[in-house]
Amino acid sequence: MLNEYDHEDADVLVEAVFEALPSMRRLVERAREEGVPVVYVNDNNGDWGAGRPELLERAMAGRAGDLVEPIAPAAGTWFIAKARHSIFYETQLEYLLREQEVDRIVLVGQVTEQCILYSALDAYVRHFAVAVPRDAVAGIHPDMADCALRMMERNMQADVVEADDCEL
Amino acid sequence: MLNEYDHEDADVLVEAVFEALPSMRRLVERAREEGVPVVYVNDNNGDWGAGRPELLERAMAGRAGDLVEPIAPAAGTWFIAKARHSIFYETQLEYLLREQEVDRIVLVGQVTEQCILYSALDAYVRHFAVAVPRDAVAGIHPDMADCALRMMERNMQADVVEADDCEL
Amino acid sequence: MLNEYDHEDADVLVEAVFEALPSMRRLVERAREEGVPVVYVNDNNGDWGAGRPELLERAMAGRAGDLVEPIAPAAGTWFIAKARHSIFYETQLEYLLREQEVDRIVLVGQVTEQCILYSALDAYVRHFAVAVPRDAVAGIHPDMADCALRMMERNMQADVVEADDCEL
Amino acid sequence: MLNEYDHEDADVLVEAVFEALPSMRRLVERAREEGVPVVYVNDNNGDWGAGRPELLERAMAGRAGDLVEPIAPAAGTWFIAKARHSIFYETQLEYLLREQEVDRIVLVGQVTEQCILYSALDAYVRHFAVAVPRDAVAGIHPDMADCALRMMERNMQADVVEADDCEL
Repeated sequence: MLNEYDHEDADVLVEAVFEALPSMRRLVERAREEGVPVVYVNDNNGDWGAGRPELLERAMAGRAGDLVEPIAPAAGTWFIAKARHSIFYETQLEYLLREQEVDRIVLVGQVTEQCILYSALDAYVRHFAVAVPRDAVAGIHPDMADCALRMMERNMQADVVEADDCEL
Repeated sequence: MLNEYDHEDADVLVEAVFEALPSMRRLVERAREEGVPVVYVNDNNGDWGAGRPELLERAMAGRAGDLVEPIAPAAGTWFIAKARHSIFYETQLEYLLREQEVDRIVLVGQVTEQCILYSALDAYVRHFAVAVPRDAVAGIHPDMADCALRMMERNMQADVVEADDCEL
Repeated sequence: MLNEYDHEDADVLVEAVFEALPSMRRLVERAREEGVPVVYVNDNNGDWGAGRPELLERAMAGRAGDLVEPIAPAAGTWFIAKARHSIFYETQLEYLLREQEVDRIVLVGQVTEQCILYSALDAYVRHFAVAVPRDAVAGIHPDMADCALRMMERNMQADVVEADDCEL
Repeated sequence: MLNEYDHEDADVLVEAVFEALPSMRRLVERAREEGVPVVYVNDNNGDWGAGRPELLERAMAGRAGDLVEPIAPAAGTWFIAKARHSIFYETQLEYLLREQEVDRIVLVGQVTEQCILYSALDAYVRHFAVAVPRDAVAGIHPDMADCALRMMERNMQADVVEADDCEL
């Protein structure tokens, strides 16, 4: 979600994120209030010297800083940089989840039919339960995003729910 | 593809495999003729004592042995057992491909919107080029299978082609 | 342990295996009697078409079939082929252990200062408890084998014990 | 190397690092001058909210900041946080190395018979060539550190050399 929105399809995505942002924000706030662990797993855009502070600063200075500010991770927030789409691919996330004895994850962010779908899949093959609040994920292609949600629900046993109904 | 077809949705899948089988078979034969490596990556259905011979025997004795026989892997065929959907998840496949200096894979088999899609994704994040012959993969839900092919083509840069046009 | 013993240092290893074989055999038998899962993880020597039956047949026909026969895995034995030294490196072993809710492994086999050491390490970083029966592992270089046992004991928290005292 | 040195055996390690520090520093400087990529892979000590700046700050404020300062990674330095001993275990390092077409790594740091040995092993099974400058790694137990260097040289085909002779 720490995105400079300077990529292909960014216009469409910006609109979708604008729609989803209030739900995203409420979920993150609820998690903090309820003591549920929150982890940001964010693309490093190929910059192996960039961590949370650098990626946040760039995203805030990007073309849609207003989409970043409401969910900006404060210092100390659990943060894992990734280079590819899935939050699990050669990252420390699985180790972190097992260490924390987490067996269910709630996916929030972008892009529904890409990183969200792929991450749901990687969680599913690892036997983590998955929930996807449909109004707290943002897609680019509505038909593929819809299909991705159906795939997650039917074939990956994900709970696809409204954000406000989502158990944390 | 060494499937006993005794699972949920097996009826629909049997029909789809029946349609795709001639193309699958021609691709495997072409690969052998052209000296292109062929690897079977097959579910072990939770039997950690089963390899190629056992899984083949059971599939042949299953409810659709006629869907197995035309593409049955002979002794000596490269074979990797898997426990989950993606052919890459905690298997030796990536190691094998790198050792063989393979940088492009052609996915043939079942199920289009499940194992094929997930394997295409895992190939893509690892920077292997992917081709999917649309008539040599078998799906269960036509709408999700169609969407999976579009996802692979658009978001995973896969070549989605007719089997007979598929470069090996 | 399904080894044709045609590699460098095989002479020394054959002698060490001869010494360790009775303890290895007793451990495997005890495990079977006590219902403790046994998994063979064996090099495929680069033959991706070979599974348990082929690798066993070749080892039996190798220069030290008498070192193989007493611990030969019967049909149905859990078996995972590996291409590199560690039993965990890109194999299904971790998945299998988690699925079976195994949290402690007993390492038996060869080579103490190579595959055994590396597998102990990979178990340790994954938080599996490790036991190494010192008389049921076979080394090539006694000084490095001794050091490997000390490394496992001190730095990987392994129980280094006599085979007959080893809890299964 | 961004270590607060507040762990068991820290006293011995501090002395060893003090010895190795000049060689470490010269290697890092040479790499920068020669345009050879440098990556810091550092324990996060279980703090998933800490990246380069936080870990550096703590290490500088620790009991041996003078061992950190000469090799402190500047902003923008490639940096990967790890939770376990090997620099490869569920980190992005392998992806980064492949993306950069790196096929040989030089290991510098601590602890010779632990993180260095384990990382050398993980590099070896992945077919990366490894060099270990013996005077630019720091151990805790001299006998195990010596043995680790011999293991790397003999069984992992590592070049174990003097730092000033080490090809970058």
